[in-house]
Amino acid sequence: MDITALSETILAGDRRALARAITLVESARADHREAAAELIGLLARSGREALRIGLSGTPGVGKSTFIEAFGLMLTGQGLRVAVLAVDPSSARSGGSILGDKTRMDHLARDPNAFIRPSPSQTHLGGVARRTREAVALCEAAGYDVVLIETVGVGQSETVVAEMSDLFLLLLAPAGGDELQGVKRGIMEMADLILVNKADGALKDTATRTCADYAGALRLLRKRPQDPPGFPKAMTVSAIEETGLDKAWAEMQALAHWRREHGHFARRRAEQARGWFVQEVRQALLARLETPEARALMAALGDRVAQGETAPALAAAEVLAQLDAPPPKR
Amino acid sequence: MDITALSETILAGDRRALARAITLVESARADHREAAAELIGLLARSGREALRIGLSGTPGVGKSTFIEAFGLMLTGQGLRVAVLAVDPSSARSGGSILGDKTRMDHLARDPNAFIRPSPSQTHLGGVARRTREAVALCEAAGYDVVLIETVGVGQSETVVAEMSDLFLLLLAPAGGDELQGVKRGIMEMADLILVNKADGALKDTATRTCADYAGALRLLRKRPQDPPGFPKAMTVSAIEETGLDKAWAEMQALAHWRREHGHFARRRAEQARGWFVQEVRQALLARLETPEARALMAALGDRVAQGETAPALAAAEVLAQLDAPPPKR
Repeated sequence: MDITALSETILAGDRRALARAITLVESARADHREAAAELIGLLARSGREALRIGLSGTPGVGKSTFIEAFGLMLTGQGLRVAVLAVDPSSARSGGSILGDKTRMDHLARDPNAFIRPSPSQTHLGGVARRTREAVALCEAAGYDVVLIETVGVGQSETVVAEMSDLFLLLLAPAGGDELQGVKRGIMEMADLILVNKADGALKDTATRTCADYAGALRLLRKRPQDPPGFPKAMTVSAIEETGLDKAWAEMQALAHWRREHGHFARRRAEQARGWFVQEVRQALLARLETPEARALMAALGDRVAQGETAPALAAAEVLAQLDAPPPKR
Repeated sequence: MDITALSETILAGDRRALARAITLVESARADHREAAAELIGLLARSGREALRIGLSGTPGVGKSTFIEAFGLMLTGQGLRVAVLAVDPSSARSGGSILGDKTRMDHLARDPNAFIRPSPSQTHLGGVARRTREAVALCEAAGYDVVLIETVGVGQSETVVAEMSDLFLLLLAPAGGDELQGVKRGIMEMADLILVNKADGALKDTATRTCADYAGALRLLRKRPQDPPGFPKAMTVSAIEETGLDKAWAEMQALAHWRREHGHFARRRAEQARGWFVQEVRQALLARLETPEARALMAALGDRVAQGETAPALAAAEVLAQLDAPPPKR
């Protein structure tokens, strides 16, 4: 594979090249992993930077409708928008949240938009790595905004927040004045809470719900990365396309303030450092996945199961044998 | 340290030697880890086997009172009982659930009982390893029953169930006929649900709660490791010491059936295999904790944070450098 040529077509904004590159980073094959690392290294030099927006919303809050309306508003302003998904459940369902593209078919057909479903992976760690590499590819391809969405299963909100510059929580109007069981930890990650469906019969409920969340946000500890007034709660209607421009203005204001005050760069630096540590750990553990290591583990696992040796002693033997022959390439 | 001598005093039933050995397995020092592995390897030959009983109960259900009453009943029958704790929160609180020994001071003073508080560890993986090694030490020291208790924070119930032959859930009588928000996953691990406080004013409530749980258990999928009638719900009163003998009879019947039908040995074999895999992974990752590796990670982490290199490329460099010089001992 000609990585230099691929990097150039990506930099030139070729969507098919971008899609091919994402397929490459999603591959678990060792030679693909190497090629992907090389490609990302090359593309990092472009210096291009998108606004990375994380978005979490459970099924039923109208996330697809929101992304479509919000994305089309941005492309209408001449911006290029990429949408990626982190969906830890897709491995189980075999599908993916964005797999059903008809759910945002206008955005999908927009030449200034790029939509990519979640990679099917057995564990969230794998999805996380592939998604943040896909984010890097989208940035190099010249997208101005990269939306990273998740349904918020298990740890996926944390994973998305850790690869975003801004983190949005999309919520539905709640009956009564009770909050919708949003976990405190998720609330603490949010920069902007958007209460969707502020239209028709639900408009008043949405306004009340928004006030409740605004109150809840005020009770949270002040974060150094927030200008006065943030985190903030607002109402939007994805269907009526109202409030989207105001929400976007708030996102831009927040991003601008963070850039000015050094928080933007600092957060990215810390994120990159965290990814590096994860990469090292994963690369180290990958040594147990070679055919030789698997065979050795299986044999020693049998001896441990039969009580012939203790787990720690057998483990020491595996490590010794992994070191014994010079690593094969 | 003379590991052979230590193993002999443990086999002779010396409680101080056992306590010292547990301190050894709790240590993170490399030489201590090696000595601990050697000690456990030596002791494994004893062939002694305790009944490992996992017990989960949130604060307020009367867990300490139950363990004291249950433990004293067992020692009264001539059995030797060890109590270990898995408490992932102890790292934060600085304390440990069994730290306050006055909560079971009769049992603590019983020469046939051994009580050990939870090791303070920053992560559950570390606590898990040290606890299952402590279980192995207690078995070799001739304890007939090893009780492993947890407050059930996060994943700790799973960790305890995975090192137990039987798993008990201690619950409190619930007002109304609603179940106490016991997660389905926890319910599915239980072999015996004990509704405590079946005494005084709460007796009827406890009976009703027990019936509710019995109904809930019947709705769960049948597991191959269960004889007819299991999993089962019962009432007990730790304070009045009622129902404890019946609960113990059920545990013995279940353990007997599982031994007869091969489930007991099969479960232990699979547990040992799982520990072995965890040991290998942890031992591999420990290579990143040497002073040299830490310095390298810090330096490359800085370069990644400053955008001078990509996470995956920097990770590849770490791996190459870890391999470059022959491993130092």
